Amino acid sequence: MKPTLLLALAGLSLVLTTFAQTTENATANKRYGIVIHGGAGTILRKSMTPELDAAYRAALKESLDAGYAILDSGGSSEEAVIAAIRLMEDNPLFNAGKGAVLNADGVCELDAAIMNGNTLAAGAITGIKHIKNPILLARAVKDKSPHVMLSGEGAEKFAVQMGFELVPNEYFQTDRRKEQLKKAKEAEQVQLHASKTPAGLMFPKVDINNDFKYGTVGAVALDKSGNLSAGTSTGGLTNKKFGRIGDSPIIGAGTYANNATCGISCTGTGEFFIRVGVAHDISSRMEYKGESVATAALTVLDKVAKLKGDGGLIAMDHNGNVTMPFNTDGMYRGYRLSDKSQSIQIYRDEK
Amino acid sequence: MKPTLLLALAGLSLVLTTFAQTTENATANKRYGIVIHGGAGTILRKSMTPELDAAYRAALKESLDAGYAILDSGGSSEEAVIAAIRLMEDNPLFNAGKGAVLNADGVCELDAAIMNGNTLAAGAITGIKHIKNPILLARAVKDKSPHVMLSGEGAEKFAVQMGFELVPNEYFQTDRRKEQLKKAKEAEQVQLHASKTPAGLMFPKVDINNDFKYGTVGAVALDKSGNLSAGTSTGGLTNKKFGRIGDSPIIGAGTYANNATCGISCTGTGEFFIRVGVAHDISSRMEYKGESVATAALTVLDKVAKLKGDGGLIAMDHNGNVTMPFNTDGMYRGYRLSDKSQSIQIYRDEK
Repeated sequence: MKPTLLLALAGLSLVLTTFAQTTENATANKRYGIVIHGGAGTILRKSMTPELDAAYRAALKESLDAGYAILDSGGSSEEAVIAAIRLMEDNPLFNAGKGAVLNADGVCELDAAIMNGNTLAAGAITGIKHIKNPILLARAVKDKSPHVMLSGEGAEKFAVQMGFELVPNEYFQTDRRKEQLKKAKEAEQVQLHASKTPAGLMFPKVDINNDFKYGTVGAVALDKSGNLSAGTSTGGLTNKKFGRIGDSPIIGAGTYANNATCGISCTGTGEFFIRVGVAHDISSRMEYKGESVATAALTVLDKVAKLKGDGGLIAMDHNGNVTMPFNTDGMYRGYRLSDKSQSIQIYRDEK
Repeated sequence: MKPTLLLALAGLSLVLTTFAQTTENATANKRYGIVIHGGAGTILRKSMTPELDAAYRAALKESLDAGYAILDSGGSSEEAVIAAIRLMEDNPLFNAGKGAVLNADGVCELDAAIMNGNTLAAGAITGIKHIKNPILLARAVKDKSPHVMLSGEGAEKFAVQMGFELVPNEYFQTDRRKEQLKKAKEAEQVQLHASKTPAGLMFPKVDINNDFKYGTVGAVALDKSGNLSAGTSTGGLTNKKFGRIGDSPIIGAGTYANNATCGISCTGTGEFFIRVGVAHDISSRMEYKGESVATAALTVLDKVAKLKGDGGLIAMDHNGNVTMPFNTDGMYRGYRLSDKSQSIQIYRDEK
């Protein structure tokens, strides 16, 4: 039952690591497991210290193990996704929850979404500033309201009524992110001199496709009952302005799950992921064209690249086949499956 | 070149009016045109006065004619969509711009989106309170920022920098909507006594699938160059709470356009349209399964109905084939095409 590990180097230098194994086992032997990401971006060996490299791998392992333990003991994929994301939100290494990037006002503004592939129930929140674990609030929207998406202060009012504790925004803010904001603002100053157009003045190029955006976290899990779930949590872009909403909390763009096909969580320049409808498009290609999750994911990420967007995604189909393609220098990523296969990777050259 | 008008009564009592004509004409004879909606819901003949019926038809005609005139003189589908929606936003009959429904705080909170099917460029705004024509701000997000979606006060800051004038929220508020809010709050009181669950206490059933939600407006156009565009504008739900975001400003849910397939604008209980990813799903079924726009739209609306959602949509494919299915009692709707065919309809029994 060992999976066949394939490394496909496709056009546009996308790296795709996928299990091509098909799992047509009896129910008792059905594969279950979890795949996670901690963001894609300019992640190079040369810019990492051994200590930071080890810290990221330890954080990914902790998150995978927490999610896997829930699945292994018969818990739901939704619980596993929540557990994995919650740990990454609590870890200042990632751009989600504590350690999220700062917006132009020096404030952390958080988005999250979760979707249940069995019921197609979904919950999402955007522009949250005082909820410790945004993924838990997204779940509350899904389970305790008739809505799918709540925003800003309204979402926090809902949170209070649901018994969530408000934390000061300073809880999320770290020195590392303050330094990144400072650099982003300096780069913006440079850009201000270089560009005279109104759009350029307000949106220097550094805001999109820059080095300050990676770190979004996400998880997809398949449980023993065959149910898929997917979730994503993020602080968005450093130096973010104007209440910008990216793809993470948009059901069908950055997050989607459907038992008929797969679960997906994306990371990257969200605008392009929204325009393509990445997560829903992968699911559609599997459902309507019969493509494998790996082929569908690679094809759709190629559409993002054609629009000049970059990033990556994780996806797992209803048989536990995993794919983790990206078109950036690296993506924090890993999986752990019930057939004992597991892997934690950061750079492009890892298998 | 007269289209064949088909009336298909499908399962789940969906009414589908579609042009089955295929248009494989020379470029010079290519069909162009516009289709609009002014919301779906409990719209019955018995609850309309002749005056109100006539007012709605006149408003739909004015909107169609404005959009069509632009197309006829060689303007872009995007300009036509903007012109048609702008008039409906300015008309207090519809739940968009002036005359939008009031949220639980008695304030109008507006969402809008526009997408260009040629470039896949998109712009959307949510939670706007002081911009007269939300669809114009959505276009500015698309054209003047690197972002797709801006929200709340941040979006209004962007608007001011783009030269938009702020209007007081009272501009949008009408006596009719104040009365509807009062009724919704009274119904909620009744519901409060009937339900003891925390979710029920906060979200009486009247908030979703009620009579207070219709009136969202939308337009899809195809221009002489063969480019599709789609747009949607709404005030959302009466008595809306917690910064709820519906499907209208969600690219892929309530709004989508792709020259390869079609343009779509939806109206109804947005939560279900988001979960299904209605607009993107219709596009996907056309692209990956080769379905007609009419079949795809009907099939996807059926998914919404299966989840217990209701509403409708307008869609036009790249050959100018129009479909306007809905599963409610009525939908304000109409189209005008370059082959001289046109229609304005309100109730279910109209052809």
